[in-house]
Amino acid sequence: MEQLFVIKIGGNVVDDANFLSSFLQDFSMERAPRILVHGGGKIATRIGEKLGIESRYVNGRRITDAGALDLVTMVYGGLVNKQIVARLQASGCNALGVTGADAGLLPAVKRPVKEIDYGFVGDIESSRVNTAGVQLLLNHGIVPVFAPLTHDGKGQMLNTNADTIASCLAVALSEQYAVRLIFCFEKKGVLQDVANDQSVIPLIDTLRYQTLLQEKVLADGILPKLENAFSACRSGVKEVLIGDARDLKQNCSGQVSGTLIRL
Amino acid sequence: MEQLFVIKIGGNVVDDANFLSSFLQDFSMERAPRILVHGGGKIATRIGEKLGIESRYVNGRRITDAGALDLVTMVYGGLVNKQIVARLQASGCNALGVTGADAGLLPAVKRPVKEIDYGFVGDIESSRVNTAGVQLLLNHGIVPVFAPLTHDGKGQMLNTNADTIASCLAVALSEQYAVRLIFCFEKKGVLQDVANDQSVIPLIDTLRYQTLLQEKVLADGILPKLENAFSACRSGVKEVLIGDARDLKQNCSGQVSGTLIRL
Repeated sequence: MEQLFVIKIGGNVVDDANFLSSFLQDFSMERAPRILVHGGGKIATRIGEKLGIESRYVNGRRITDAGALDLVTMVYGGLVNKQIVARLQASGCNALGVTGADAGLLPAVKRPVKEIDYGFVGDIESSRVNTAGVQLLLNHGIVPVFAPLTHDGKGQMLNTNADTIASCLAVALSEQYAVRLIFCFEKKGVLQDVANDQSVIPLIDTLRYQTLLQEKVLADGILPKLENAFSACRSGVKEVLIGDARDLKQNCSGQVSGTLIRL
Repeated sequence: MEQLFVIKIGGNVVDDANFLSSFLQDFSMERAPRILVHGGGKIATRIGEKLGIESRYVNGRRITDAGALDLVTMVYGGLVNKQIVARLQASGCNALGVTGADAGLLPAVKRPVKEIDYGFVGDIESSRVNTAGVQLLLNHGIVPVFAPLTHDGKGQMLNTNADTIASCLAVALSEQYAVRLIFCFEKKGVLQDVANDQSVIPLIDTLRYQTLLQEKVLADGILPKLENAFSACRSGVKEVLIGDARDLKQNCSGQVSGTLIRL
């Protein structure tokens, strides 16, 4: 099976011009088929404040009302996505920016209202991901760059978590490719000791994960990422890597510097 | 040669929700290979005002400074483009939204500063249009939807007139397709008498154009459109049609209701 990298960068990378530049440079040097998924960053909040669109949160989760949806569609789907595409093109990487609406790549449903009404937030219909559309691009040397947006197939754009988009793409494409799903952030990997950046755990398999959970050494923020990672592995993704955006080159090679997650 | 429609809608269509809806419905009913190019509309001006980004004009031409470029990249490349794509998808049209940066489809150069510095405005390098990239999409039943933006190949997005994008695409693809380039606006076509909406001139060829110019009956606003149309025809486009966005169905058929322009 051919290898495919599905690489997600978070808002912290997008927000830092130098960080982003050097990441995109490294990303464009890779030659294997690859997909980039980007988060949004604080720029949407800044622009939203000027437009009088407040960021509303319930229990720490962002609520996407109609104004917030327009905001993220503009900022993530337009500004951030196209700036990334233009820079990748400049580095010789044939990037094409998309949302989940484009070519119907990521069909989603508006999240049902239970205790919280999240508003215009999309839950991807993972069995309906348009893998043929993604493969068409990949087979022609085109690098899809996903903004964190989907659609409901009825004309409605939906705000969608970038981690979830990356996971869904990785899972959907794992029938055709040996997928390494890479979550890039600003730490070296999953840390044994949150206070020590050098305490990266190089490999976490199912057994090690159980032990780490029992020892309660992991930072709260990393738990959903790990759960997400194992869920992807259980659904066919070969391996998941959590690492520093600055270490992309190693993390696309055999000598990973972050944390590799396998069943 | 297979027929291809390159269809441009202006800001007036984009701004009017009902107008746009019925246009997109008609557009999605067509079955021939087709490309949509959309203008921006006044929404960018409205959002710009809230963001404190003024629309600057010199001699009636918009100047695109860095703030204005971010604005149009957001609003045209994100909000307007993705809303159109989501609606087309809902109508069964496999739309994929792009700018000229995506897949390097439309390489451009920043307009050289002469009497006026237009700022971040792109002049398309017509000989370098990535026709293979457009054809890849068309051959797979994908309908490209272009926002009026290009890039300079060095990482810089550029604001670019939607009419020009439509013309350049029509010309570049005229080697592979019999192209009808359709400019949709809110009038029935080129009018013999500007005060009479029923005075549409059904066909303008080179001879008729010369006569009309000598008679000075044409409205000022239509002259650049006609010049642009004849220029496209001289560069290989089979025919250009100027007509009402509400008459798309007829204007994609043999019974045009607008003005057909041929050499």
